[in-house]
Amino acid sequence: MFTYNDSKIKIVEVGPRDGLQNEKISLQLEDKMQYISLLAQAGLQTIEATSFVRADKIPQMADAKELFLQLKKQEYFHHINFPCLVPNRKGYEAAKAVGVREISLFSATSDEFSLKNINCTVDESFKRMQEVATLAKEEGIKIRGYISTAFGCPYAGDIGVKKLVEVIEKFEELGVYEISIGDTIGVGTPKQVDDYLKEVLKVISVEKIAMHFHDTRGMALSNILVSLEHGVSVFDSSSGGLGGCPYAKGATGNVATEDIYYLLNSLGLVTNLDLNKLYLASKFILEKVQKQSPSKFFQILEQKQGKV
Amino acid sequence: MFTYNDSKIKIVEVGPRDGLQNEKISLQLEDKMQYISLLAQAGLQTIEATSFVRADKIPQMADAKELFLQLKKQEYFHHINFPCLVPNRKGYEAAKAVGVREISLFSATSDEFSLKNINCTVDESFKRMQEVATLAKEEGIKIRGYISTAFGCPYAGDIGVKKLVEVIEKFEELGVYEISIGDTIGVGTPKQVDDYLKEVLKVISVEKIAMHFHDTRGMALSNILVSLEHGVSVFDSSSGGLGGCPYAKGATGNVATEDIYYLLNSLGLVTNLDLNKLYLASKFILEKVQKQSPSKFFQILEQKQGKV
Repeated sequence: MFTYNDSKIKIVEVGPRDGLQNEKISLQLEDKMQYISLLAQAGLQTIEATSFVRADKIPQMADAKELFLQLKKQEYFHHINFPCLVPNRKGYEAAKAVGVREISLFSATSDEFSLKNINCTVDESFKRMQEVATLAKEEGIKIRGYISTAFGCPYAGDIGVKKLVEVIEKFEELGVYEISIGDTIGVGTPKQVDDYLKEVLKVISVEKIAMHFHDTRGMALSNILVSLEHGVSVFDSSSGGLGGCPYAKGATGNVATEDIYYLLNSLGLVTNLDLNKLYLASKFILEKVQKQSPSKFFQILEQKQGKV
Repeated sequence: MFTYNDSKIKIVEVGPRDGLQNEKISLQLEDKMQYISLLAQAGLQTIEATSFVRADKIPQMADAKELFLQLKKQEYFHHINFPCLVPNRKGYEAAKAVGVREISLFSATSDEFSLKNINCTVDESFKRMQEVATLAKEEGIKIRGYISTAFGCPYAGDIGVKKLVEVIEKFEELGVYEISIGDTIGVGTPKQVDDYLKEVLKVISVEKIAMHFHDTRGMALSNILVSLEHGVSVFDSSSGGLGGCPYAKGATGNVATEDIYYLLNSLGLVTNLDLNKLYLASKFILEKVQKQSPSKFFQILEQKQGKV
């Protein structure tokens, strides 16, 4: 009854960027480097390293340049992808200057969200991104696209799949190699994911799709299961489930990489991850930000000191 | 890609029994009655009320007789099913004496678990149950069967589906109207549920199957999703996710009725539940046992004071 594509799965680890960006405790650069090193040791092949944004907006990412320069000195730098988020041309120039090889550009399906987040509408955001995308392509820098509020917006509510499809098509025109469909506030449900993917896959090949779920209402793994049934093979996650909004009590963050590992492993899907090492990376960073993981599987790992 | 039977779903609320039995705080009878009354108001049609077990083994259930006599005085008693767990003939006689109309009998797939739990092997447990089942049928009392450790045993590990199928066939011979397949320690995964159900449904009609998941590793909803794809339409759960083992830190209990509601509602499956009233029932009992719900969806409900 239950079917899925048994191709190899790619996990995009977003802990160092999406996971940490809202943490109140300001992390030392050396701790971030240690975290990324531990993630690399765990076998993660794609790690979103940082974002080149205004330091007054996201203070946690103020060390982006220095962090990337440090990354380049590491042995593992040469066999791991380190995409960096870039909001505009200024951020792009800063990223390029330190040798970033892959950028993530982002928009949303909701104008309301886009206006609050980056002070422009969705259409305007694509005008900005067009300039950056053109430069990046000329300079051989890969581009990943992120779509926020794909399954619902905190301000505008339900946006609908039509808008999502439009935004996907705009990203395709920009020349991105992969599009991450983000359930920013964790409101997506399996039926909605099923319905939306049916429409989405009419306009884009499944290999180009990544799903980015937050486990706010405990639906992330069920949504991933449905995505797998559609043949999706790329998932974003953060180790330990980092990324909760500090202003919403109980709100949990990105689905934990450990949770995805557990689900995929039980399905016999290959991820090349070392669970024990992944646990050690998460444990390290959770202690630094003084948080408990919201992942139940992670809590079991803690009881068993990383062994299952 | 994702398919399920859109028949009406039955939820068996096990909070007052499976949910409370291991709670250290001894609840007053009037609080249990209030809890059950709130569950009834929320629209639950089947509520496992108590168990007729030795008070020295499960002190929380020592008031079973008195509780059931109180239940019989309630207006809602006449349109709600109140199965009661019965471990042996003595428990059965006590249940019958106060007018219980439906009993739950239980065994396991694991001899190791059965020996620790009820001091006899699985085969021996069926000999005991045969006597009770014969009496119950003569007296027109309905029987539900529970199978523990269906997806793994804390002592013996993986048991395998062959043993599960054997135990299901034994329960069929006893004349039960429904068999609840229990993932006692929450180790089941979607692939395993898928594989096991394929075998199980060769020997029993899907209408007679209930699935009983614990969310220990965060897999309960994914497992329910796979069960739905097999046409299963009966699920056990406890309001608020009560039922964690007090001796295992971080171990969570039965999947929360609220979680199941949220999943089923998003799929358009009818449950007749009033979510706000269900939330109030859970909130009441969680305060009494001084626990936080492990359900992420419940935590969102708390933020929004029961409204979604």
